[in-house]
Amino acid sequence: MAKKRIGIVMGSDSDLTIMKEAMNILKEFDVDFDVNIISAHRSPERAHSYATEAEEKYDVIIAGAGGAAHLAGVVASLTPIPVIGVPMPTSGLGGLDSLLSMVQMPSGIPVSTMAIGKSGAMNAAILAIQIVSLSDPKIRQKMVLYKKKLSDDVAKKDKEARTELGLL
Amino acid sequence: MAKKRIGIVMGSDSDLTIMKEAMNILKEFDVDFDVNIISAHRSPERAHSYATEAEEKYDVIIAGAGGAAHLAGVVASLTPIPVIGVPMPTSGLGGLDSLLSMVQMPSGIPVSTMAIGKSGAMNAAILAIQIVSLSDPKIRQKMVLYKKKLSDDVAKKDKEARTELGLL
Amino acid sequence: MAKKRIGIVMGSDSDLTIMKEAMNILKEFDVDFDVNIISAHRSPERAHSYATEAEEKYDVIIAGAGGAAHLAGVVASLTPIPVIGVPMPTSGLGGLDSLLSMVQMPSGIPVSTMAIGKSGAMNAAILAIQIVSLSDPKIRQKMVLYKKKLSDDVAKKDKEARTELGLL
Amino acid sequence: MAKKRIGIVMGSDSDLTIMKEAMNILKEFDVDFDVNIISAHRSPERAHSYATEAEEKYDVIIAGAGGAAHLAGVVASLTPIPVIGVPMPTSGLGGLDSLLSMVQMPSGIPVSTMAIGKSGAMNAAILAIQIVSLSDPKIRQKMVLYKKKLSDDVAKKDKEARTELGLL
Amino acid sequence: MAKKRIGIVMGSDSDLTIMKEAMNILKEFDVDFDVNIISAHRSPERAHSYATEAEEKYDVIIAGAGGAAHLAGVVASLTPIPVIGVPMPTSGLGGLDSLLSMVQMPSGIPVSTMAIGKSGAMNAAILAIQIVSLSDPKIRQKMVLYKKKLSDDVAKKDKEARTELGLL
Amino acid sequence: MAKKRIGIVMGSDSDLTIMKEAMNILKEFDVDFDVNIISAHRSPERAHSYATEAEEKYDVIIAGAGGAAHLAGVVASLTPIPVIGVPMPTSGLGGLDSLLSMVQMPSGIPVSTMAIGKSGAMNAAILAIQIVSLSDPKIRQKMVLYKKKLSDDVAKKDKEARTELGLL
Amino acid sequence: MAKKRIGIVMGSDSDLTIMKEAMNILKEFDVDFDVNIISAHRSPERAHSYATEAEEKYDVIIAGAGGAAHLAGVVASLTPIPVIGVPMPTSGLGGLDSLLSMVQMPSGIPVSTMAIGKSGAMNAAILAIQIVSLSDPKIRQKMVLYKKKLSDDVAKKDKEARTELGLL
Amino acid sequence: MAKKRIGIVMGSDSDLTIMKEAMNILKEFDVDFDVNIISAHRSPERAHSYATEAEEKYDVIIAGAGGAAHLAGVVASLTPIPVIGVPMPTSGLGGLDSLLSMVQMPSGIPVSTMAIGKSGAMNAAILAIQIVSLSDPKIRQKMVLYKKKLSDDVAKKDKEARTELGLL
Repeated sequence: MAKKRIGIVMGSDSDLTIMKEAMNILKEFDVDFDVNIISAHRSPERAHSYATEAEEKYDVIIAGAGGAAHLAGVVASLTPIPVIGVPMPTSGLGGLDSLLSMVQMPSGIPVSTMAIGKSGAMNAAILAIQIVSLSDPKIRQKMVLYKKKLSDDVAKKDKEARTELGLL
Repeated sequence: MAKKRIGIVMGSDSDLTIMKEAMNILKEFDVDFDVNIISAHRSPERAHSYATEAEEKYDVIIAGAGGAAHLAGVVASLTPIPVIGVPMPTSGLGGLDSLLSMVQMPSGIPVSTMAIGKSGAMNAAILAIQIVSLSDPKIRQKMVLYKKKLSDDVAKKDKEARTELGLL
Repeated sequence: MAKKRIGIVMGSDSDLTIMKEAMNILKEFDVDFDVNIISAHRSPERAHSYATEAEEKYDVIIAGAGGAAHLAGVVASLTPIPVIGVPMPTSGLGGLDSLLSMVQMPSGIPVSTMAIGKSGAMNAAILAIQIVSLSDPKIRQKMVLYKKKLSDDVAKKDKEARTELGLL
Repeated sequence: MAKKRIGIVMGSDSDLTIMKEAMNILKEFDVDFDVNIISAHRSPERAHSYATEAEEKYDVIIAGAGGAAHLAGVVASLTPIPVIGVPMPTSGLGGLDSLLSMVQMPSGIPVSTMAIGKSGAMNAAILAIQIVSLSDPKIRQKMVLYKKKLSDDVAKKDKEARTELGLL
Repeated sequence: MAKKRIGIVMGSDSDLTIMKEAMNILKEFDVDFDVNIISAHRSPERAHSYATEAEEKYDVIIAGAGGAAHLAGVVASLTPIPVIGVPMPTSGLGGLDSLLSMVQMPSGIPVSTMAIGKSGAMNAAILAIQIVSLSDPKIRQKMVLYKKKLSDDVAKKDKEARTELGLL
Repeated sequence: MAKKRIGIVMGSDSDLTIMKEAMNILKEFDVDFDVNIISAHRSPERAHSYATEAEEKYDVIIAGAGGAAHLAGVVASLTPIPVIGVPMPTSGLGGLDSLLSMVQMPSGIPVSTMAIGKSGAMNAAILAIQIVSLSDPKIRQKMVLYKKKLSDDVAKKDKEARTELGLL
Repeated sequence: MAKKRIGIVMGSDSDLTIMKEAMNILKEFDVDFDVNIISAHRSPERAHSYATEAEEKYDVIIAGAGGAAHLAGVVASLTPIPVIGVPMPTSGLGGLDSLLSMVQMPSGIPVSTMAIGKSGAMNAAILAIQIVSLSDPKIRQKMVLYKKKLSDDVAKKDKEARTELGLL
Repeated sequence: MAKKRIGIVMGSDSDLTIMKEAMNILKEFDVDFDVNIISAHRSPERAHSYATEAEEKYDVIIAGAGGAAHLAGVVASLTPIPVIGVPMPTSGLGGLDSLLSMVQMPSGIPVSTMAIGKSGAMNAAILAIQIVSLSDPKIRQKMVLYKKKLSDDVAKKDKEARTELGLL
């Protein structure tokens, strides 16, 4: 199997819209991935088997969850591979609950936590790519170009705004 | 086995001081209990087996944990018996992280959440006793007396303070 | 009376939409319940009489309230039966005020606190059912099946999403 | 009875140190007061009778409480006289829980909320004095002088600091 | 002048919708009031003169303000009469900024703080009425009736809901 | 008068320890300053006259205050010169109350807000120096050197740490 | 070059709507300004060159950014001129993240922080004008008139509201 | 060079105590690392050169910083390798400011954020090891053993506590 594999998992199908942002980035980098909906709380046995099999199947896990967001932590507790967590926004507390439930892990079991919501989902994919690129110079090269493109896009926006404002 | 059994579980031995408050209340009511230190994150397999065996062994679970406090939720996901959660205080965020990680459970898997720290540990025991008292009139009677004693103690403190202040 | 009885009480008729989530779960389990609108602050005498008569009428109370959410605590102060609290979302603070007013009870008088909003209302019903199931093997059996169904539903959503994403 | 009477009530004898700040201010203004320790949760019947008798005994109530701080609200729900609340600091959340439990009252039943802790206790007394001074010109006059003294004290501190810093 | 007078002041005309809730309550009680829009920050000299003249004109001040909500504190610093503050909701922080800017007053200068938004505005009027009722038995009597009506309204809502739910 | 003048003002002598950090920086830059203790709430008339005279006396104001921290805003409302605010730490809420009371100013009246506590006091002085340096090349030159020294100090700490760790 | 120059920079073109509030104020004062879109994170090299060239081009920088809002701090770290920061509102946390990322700067490198959102953008421009007015009496005079107009506008709103309410 | 290299960087020597927790873990795994003290704000040029050279020197960066904690973000903006952030606790806000400044990164530039303080520092090292272990089966094997040891340690604590409590 030539390509690195990322396992994306989320606690509910209502997280799909946000987690698709991660999938889009992975597609852009041509890094293959798998997707599952598994709830740490409602389907704990499947979360358990997913986590124990993760090392065989994937290089990195991206887990999205909201509220008492335990999914990333549950997976991280049962696998030696890196687990990246994406806190979902929540209606009442804006995702602060998801963030704290994910990031405040006890020593021994890290969850690599991203920003709340779509930016976090995108960044989870980018971080996963950065991780697999450590042993894959082609992907590393793509990442370098991607970062250059980010910068170019800002420059383009700058030019557009300055033109619109009559500053160019 | 005539007496109801409560299973107390906590994520770390550093939680013992706080969780002993729950044990003291249970002793006062002569309700027997078991105690375990099991980490949802550091010993996930034991957490799993603890939770799957909980229904056979206990009527109610009391789980104390801090930070990304998943222990109560992990147990609740795997047992049909009531799970009461005690959020531990944390140095940085005062236990708000523990509280939100515990209380903001998704629909389907409740964790009965108590106050942060010692009051929460005491109340976890009292709630557990209230639960088992539903089918045990003797314990119910003790609970009625306990609540009366709480009230009498406040009245006594009132009298002492008023005496000290020269109001009696 | 063969069935267990749950008393649902809420501080305002504006809480009805959320609290109906609890009623739906109780109906699904065929556990009978009563519903009242009683404000701890606007109708304190009725709150008092409701609480003092609760033990005769109900096995468990579910109380929903928002803001300075005292209703659950007021009832809990006057009855030896378990009281479950559902914090209502609030426009300004997202329900953090309701949550803290409910969960931070002093030692001696627990309120079993659920998540903010609809998930919390559903979970209040599930916890109430878990409590009454301690002495009712039939309800316990339904709860085991309910949890299995929760898991099956997630598995179904997983399959649907994977099919949609072309992963199956 | 020539003097106005203030009723001070608090939820626990552990609140006495802070609430004595209110007593000291009332003594300074020679406004007589009564003090009680009554818990909204642990001695609800006494809280109820205290509140229903408050109108006969007092002009204004000052209630101090912490955590799920319901005492002021419980009293306010049962009396037409003004109720001033002092949120106690709490170890975990710094008193934010006490503050929100007190201030976020539903429409119909106000609690006049002060700052967390000692400043709040002092200000509760000052506000109570301002209230009774509406029909008592002598107390009003004392309040005017008190405010002048506050200003003079700051001026004195200013002079001391400027002298110490070599600016005078 | 037979009637008590309340001075309502707010920092911006955008606060009018919320502060009209206070006016409606005062009208209901037939307590006359004055209304001004004065900004502590944008029109400080008028805030100053308003505050220094307040004692002559009004018995109680109700001040609504948002964000760095200083208006109530500025008025309170310059008058010996009671000042009630209503924190306005804010788009970003939900009014937590307004609340803390208002309630955390230093010792010496209390602001009687209400809940964020409309409930707070209504309660400010009720508290003002409670205050002026100390020396006005007729208004006191109205307040007793008002509280009774609040309770009756809840009872009516209870009946309606129970009828709709088929429980009556 | 050759030198620029900074007016430092604080709400209480208890703020002196923190505000001396600002004085030390100003001394280091040989920028002269004045110091006053004036409370926006306890000595409002002096705050008023201080603010109205500020333009004549000072180029920039640095105001330190805590809790409902209105001093900087009060001064800013009455002067056209820049006002820098330093939020004091508070025991309960860690200074979040001071920060929000200071920074959330309405449009029209800015307060240039610094970090909570000592870092904020130091930075208030640095910002004030940056402001007066706009028309004073010598002070600008000192600022450039100061920033270089900050960088050199970090490099020195880096070297010390690396030596201690055996990395050099 | 007769006029003072302000450099406005923001992290994303999505910040333009808010930052235009600053531009409008600067136009009103006839203070010329430049605008750039530069991301501290996505175009770090351009942020670096912008900051190192800032002293030559501008008197004051206004930087708007959201989330982990580093732009103002990055610029401030590399220039001796004053940097004013405008925290953008964020969907999840309402801008509290932007505010804390901006205001809690370490000692040595101040960022003059404004309120979250539009008020903050307007105030950034006003503060920048206050700063440049230190050496420009004409602009100072305009600022004095602007503050007078602010006050007059409130007085006008007051009159309108009082007329509408039948109080005039 | 056979071993993977981790670059540890922190904003201040006051962070050393916490960051040594990361060093200890790396030593335990025999993964070599480098340590630097570089401030994003006080030594921005060195932060810039550190970040641009990071890819050549290290596989993964661990960055610790507090308050407006920009260091991790600054490094991440200039390198394609993974950057792990450790938010330092802060005296006022308990590290919530550090956490939000670090985790709420915009899309495109992830910072892999850990818990506040010592647990976070330990977990940063563990995550870094998990990352480098993707292409190093020996380190992976050590990680599997490490996780087993974590579990065994909890089991040992469990046994000790149960013995002390007389449950074994």
